[in-house]
Amino acid sequence: MLSAVILCGGSGTRLWPASRKTVPKQFVRLTGARSMFQETLDRVNSLPGLSIPLIVTGAIHKEQVEAQLAEIGLAANLLVEPEGRESGPAIAAAALHLLERDPDAIMLVLAADHHIGDAMAFREIVPRAVSAAAHGRIVTFGMRPDHPATGYGYIAPGEAIGSVAGVRRVLHFAEKPAAEIACDYLAAGYLWNSGNFVFRADVLLGELARFEPAMLDAVRRSVALGAESIDGFHLELESFCSATRKPIDTAVMERTAHAVVLPVEMGWSDIGTWNAVWEASGKDEAGNVISGDAVTVDTRRSLVRADNILVATAGVEDLVIVATPDAVLVCRRDASQSVRRVVERLMQENRVEATLPPDKRRP
Amino acid sequence: MLSAVILCGGSGTRLWPASRKTVPKQFVRLTGARSMFQETLDRVNSLPGLSIPLIVTGAIHKEQVEAQLAEIGLAANLLVEPEGRESGPAIAAAALHLLERDPDAIMLVLAADHHIGDAMAFREIVPRAVSAAAHGRIVTFGMRPDHPATGYGYIAPGEAIGSVAGVRRVLHFAEKPAAEIACDYLAAGYLWNSGNFVFRADVLLGELARFEPAMLDAVRRSVALGAESIDGFHLELESFCSATRKPIDTAVMERTAHAVVLPVEMGWSDIGTWNAVWEASGKDEAGNVISGDAVTVDTRRSLVRADNILVATAGVEDLVIVATPDAVLVCRRDASQSVRRVVERLMQENRVEATLPPDKRRP
Repeated sequence: MLSAVILCGGSGTRLWPASRKTVPKQFVRLTGARSMFQETLDRVNSLPGLSIPLIVTGAIHKEQVEAQLAEIGLAANLLVEPEGRESGPAIAAAALHLLERDPDAIMLVLAADHHIGDAMAFREIVPRAVSAAAHGRIVTFGMRPDHPATGYGYIAPGEAIGSVAGVRRVLHFAEKPAAEIACDYLAAGYLWNSGNFVFRADVLLGELARFEPAMLDAVRRSVALGAESIDGFHLELESFCSATRKPIDTAVMERTAHAVVLPVEMGWSDIGTWNAVWEASGKDEAGNVISGDAVTVDTRRSLVRADNILVATAGVEDLVIVATPDAVLVCRRDASQSVRRVVERLMQENRVEATLPPDKRRP
Repeated sequence: MLSAVILCGGSGTRLWPASRKTVPKQFVRLTGARSMFQETLDRVNSLPGLSIPLIVTGAIHKEQVEAQLAEIGLAANLLVEPEGRESGPAIAAAALHLLERDPDAIMLVLAADHHIGDAMAFREIVPRAVSAAAHGRIVTFGMRPDHPATGYGYIAPGEAIGSVAGVRRVLHFAEKPAAEIACDYLAAGYLWNSGNFVFRADVLLGELARFEPAMLDAVRRSVALGAESIDGFHLELESFCSATRKPIDTAVMERTAHAVVLPVEMGWSDIGTWNAVWEASGKDEAGNVISGDAVTVDTRRSLVRADNILVATAGVEDLVIVATPDAVLVCRRDASQSVRRVVERLMQENRVEATLPPDKRRP
């Protein structure tokens, strides 16, 4: 049976000050009325024939997951990590957890903090990925690029393989490229590596046993010693925290002979920067994306976000302005990668992202 | 005897959101550690041989005047207007008040919300203005322009007059000009009309009796019926509020034959916009004027003011960013005149300048 596994462990800082360590970007309303976590649940809920989704999340975010589920009235099972150790152990735990209940479990692994503009394309592609996965493939969605992004890894697709239309071998995975190289990648037909996958739980565990036996052993122990409780399954602390900290990409995807890529165009973005939020959002006739309590005069192609504070703008273009009651960000839209430097500076000053202590922050 | 009269009745909105109706710009720290009201008091205090200064202020600002006086440890007499009626009635009341105590009173009338960069030049020019005033002249300080400002009125100086060096007749006063006309004014040697004056109290009252007898009568009544109390002299409400609402410029200066102008260069600005604050303030090596809790990355020629809230900037140039706990302004520095439009928009929406009620604002 197909189960959606939603990885909800991120802690983004590039969308500061709306995204905080305590409230990472998947829980923040960025591109619409719902958070990206909620949009991900909506998308999964629209697929036919799935079991109840499994959400893998850190203990510190469990309450936010529950609150956001309640808000949209959807149910889910929780798999609670004592701490985040990248996606390798998270996916291994989910695979073991599902396999105990269904020896034929197929996993649709989705990041909780990605935006998909074309929900229909998503609904159409998943069954094809599932067909390929049923034949033992480890399927990764390869997003057809519309610009030479330097913020994504790329996949070089090889020849067609198997009976499912569109599925191709993976020639290799490429790291985030420099701008010139990204142009070459586009010309060569490379795809963006989205980090969303479909595979049989037993196939993935077989590859993990081969490539990362220590990781798998530790995770297996944390499942065996874990505790089912009314609010979800809690992985055992000590053994989980001894699992190798590694993303699934380097643990399995870049090594396995079973990897295939399914090219798709579905308006995907990992919403890594404020510029990506602007790009993924609906705009007014001046090209602005405005939310909250804002008064704009002569303002063009800007993102203005006023969370519980008034923001007024005059005579500005191509800016990102994000204001919260304790912190304000103003940056050029095409410099929104620099937010990382701002947050690093704050950390150097031993600040917890802003002025106010956590108990005074908005939920 | 020379008495400084400080007109402290303004209610600027162009410096929103730092300046509010309840806390107008003269009380805000804009260009340094002291408010412009306090800097004005400092300047007056540095002049030799003056009596205690007289501050004309509205009832709603009396407590702020007292608090800011206490902060810098200076004493002053207060003349309290029940409401603001422009500078004509304010100066008339001050003249009557001083004349009762000193028939030879000479008044140095200063706005509380102007910046003077060159305090030495100010100290040197005042005695010359007083000499001319003692001979019955109504002396206005004419600021030598360093650029064709369109935000100031101008004075066309005539021939030299009297025995005091530099004093010249006033040919005429000119309204705030269009940009091309301002260039003509500069070429013709026109001066900025600063709205700061020196004159004998009895001379001014004589001219008011001639040009604005009704105004003078009303103010005279409000002084006669006014009440001296421990916190200052309170002008009587009904009669003061019946006085013609008119600035001293149109009431007297533009009509009297006694007007003279004393040209001076003293780094003067009426700090009418955020750009003027930037211009009048000390800058770091990147040309920024930064105050409060700010983190700036790749930021140039900008004003960043973070009042009790964190402001982070990245990759921006020539911006004004003013953040307070209830409102944030972001505007292009050369568009800072547009702040007026922002405040008008807020007023159309029946807002009192921001989100929070007055009792939650900073003092």
